[in-house]
Amino acid sequence: MKLEKKEIAELGKLARVQLATSLPGVKPICLVGSQSNTGLTNLAPFSSITHLGSSPMLIGMVTRPASVERHTLNNILETGVWTLNHVHEEIMAQAHQCSARYEVSEFEATGLREVYVDGIEAPFVEEARVRYALELREVMDIKVNDTKLIIGEVIYIETYDAFLLPDGGLDLVQAGSLGSTALDTYFDINQCGKFDYAKPEKEPS
Amino acid sequence: MKLEKKEIAELGKLARVQLATSLPGVKPICLVGSQSNTGLTNLAPFSSITHLGSSPMLIGMVTRPASVERHTLNNILETGVWTLNHVHEEIMAQAHQCSARYEVSEFEATGLREVYVDGIEAPFVEEARVRYALELREVMDIKVNDTKLIIGEVIYIETYDAFLLPDGGLDLVQAGSLGSTALDTYFDINQCGKFDYAKPEKEPS
Repeated sequence: MKLEKKEIAELGKLARVQLATSLPGVKPICLVGSQSNTGLTNLAPFSSITHLGSSPMLIGMVTRPASVERHTLNNILETGVWTLNHVHEEIMAQAHQCSARYEVSEFEATGLREVYVDGIEAPFVEEARVRYALELREVMDIKVNDTKLIIGEVIYIETYDAFLLPDGGLDLVQAGSLGSTALDTYFDINQCGKFDYAKPEKEPS
Repeated sequence: MKLEKKEIAELGKLARVQLATSLPGVKPICLVGSQSNTGLTNLAPFSSITHLGSSPMLIGMVTRPASVERHTLNNILETGVWTLNHVHEEIMAQAHQCSARYEVSEFEATGLREVYVDGIEAPFVEEARVRYALELREVMDIKVNDTKLIIGEVIYIETYDAFLLPDGGLDLVQAGSLGSTALDTYFDINQCGKFDYAKPEKEPS
């Protein structure tokens, strides 16, 4: 299949959305926990999450203003803090259900349990095996299509010791962290390769 | 394990990088193909790739200026166009090797083959099963840590008919598209769930 610009523009709306969201490849899937100034909690699935830097430790995520993610953005602007909670297979169906447009808290609607850490005004998902909190650093407007890049600094990380690798990274396979695409399809992962730092004069190993 | 802000800051450099890059969860892995105005081609592995919108079809990727990715950014600024090529297991070792700091083209160094499409001044990877081209729309400075978000519009897509799903998306499992973390670890994926559009009054299905 070959699609040129004109043919891409002529795709039906659903097909264009499904194709566009799957073009990057497999993406992460996390539940974003936040709460409003009045204490109403919110959970929303996000997959546009990316590492921006390690010192300070910065994470960015993209949000569309005119969607269910609006609550998340409003809450982050109000309290300046949010959590990211890795989705694993046992909470996959509940995590997916958090994309519905609820009037009540998604914790209440899905039965996922909220848990708090002193000094952090955002709920964590108790069932998550990897969870962390971010403090708002910047919201950048992406003018070409009215989306926003929300940038936060990691201020707290919680996981099981068993999921820490000797080099300091997370063992995403052991943690059961899922991948996703198009906000409807979920993948489990298996390691198929790990390589040393690449150098020009050296074969890959 | 629980890490607070102070403990995160005290991590050694390598551990902090590995932890930060694995926090988002599994990410895509694509080879970015570009060429300079003088015709020197370049291939670089990128995992910070995200969907920004479907109409127009926009993809964003994050680049760090002071790295091997510098060639990619310079080329994109010079020619205004680049390609993204999904990495699969058979080209994984060569793709990883593209992160080495070569003076010559990574095509020449790794043996991956370049292929061109009329009117697109950037090389595609012939071995890739999903590949597409982007035209530069905007480069946004992320001031908090001197990275950049490069935004492009999809102007060409090429894959096999067998990898197209009935809804218009890509079958990433059949295409063998890999995930990655920390630019050293690669994952193959298996579908473990696919759900309907979530509605408040409806059980997940």
